[in-house]
Amino acid sequence: MGNELYFEDFHLGQKFQSHGSVKVTAADIKEFGEKYDPQPFHLDETAGENSFFGGLAASGWLTAAIVMRMRVETIRVAGGMIGAGVEEIRWTKPVRPGDSLHTDTEVVGVRQSNKRPNFGVVTIQTLTLNQREEIVMRSRVNFLAPLRSAKK
Amino acid sequence: MGNELYFEDFHLGQKFQSHGSVKVTAADIKEFGEKYDPQPFHLDETAGENSFFGGLAASGWLTAAIVMRMRVETIRVAGGMIGAGVEEIRWTKPVRPGDSLHTDTEVVGVRQSNKRPNFGVVTIQTLTLNQREEIVMRSRVNFLAPLRSAKK
Repeated sequence: MGNELYFEDFHLGQKFQSHGSVKVTAADIKEFGEKYDPQPFHLDETAGENSFFGGLAASGWLTAAIVMRMRVETIRVAGGMIGAGVEEIRWTKPVRPGDSLHTDTEVVGVRQSNKRPNFGVVTIQTLTLNQREEIVMRSRVNFLAPLRSAKK
Repeated sequence: MGNELYFEDFHLGQKFQSHGSVKVTAADIKEFGEKYDPQPFHLDETAGENSFFGGLAASGWLTAAIVMRMRVETIRVAGGMIGAGVEEIRWTKPVRPGDSLHTDTEVVGVRQSNKRPNFGVVTIQTLTLNQREEIVMRSRVNFLAPLRSAKK
């Protein structure tokens, strides 16, 4: 845990890339769909073909969850990555069975917290790309990072 | 499927309440944490106690996924609820093991789609509340709804 990041370690334009990529299988898509987004195009290939998506497609919330995992593995904040809200998510292409996702993240905002004097708020923009380097999701989220100067 | 909703069925101020509530167990929190948000406070009670959250707490993305399920069950859009992006999410209180969540949703925007002439974009604001009627999440998301007038 020697290289955990504090608020002072973040700066505008700083970049983080995911370690490798995450493959999304048909089983992953259906399992998540059954639990959290039970719509035909997230559950069944044939139903997917007759839908808006023209095939089985991952719930956007599965993609968002996978991206959270990549974020946690990539940006090691001291005390953990505490979410401080989502500013925007756009799902720009369907995620299909067999797609491999990776992320490019950039710090687009740093500010001290109004409510929590021992924390700063870091805003990151993450592009999630598939194996053809097509952007499947764009997101801007905030997280808290503790001030090193407040460390006891 | 007789009462599926088309774009023309939505109007500003329209309200939807979730059918009943969803109980979130420690097992749900840990399972989701292991898969998508592997941080100590989402995985283990003791680690949670020594963290920002002061106890085991659900990943905000689990709450968002549960809310997606409630949305799908509550608002039955013709052809399915196709996400058209998130405008904002705020997690205002931790979700703890044993909490029961329900939602109050209001339509806050309706407009025709620029890109898809057969669809409109509906924006909804959803408050997610626990069994003490405390707001745990506030979110504003967009989805597509097909125009009835375009129905073949």
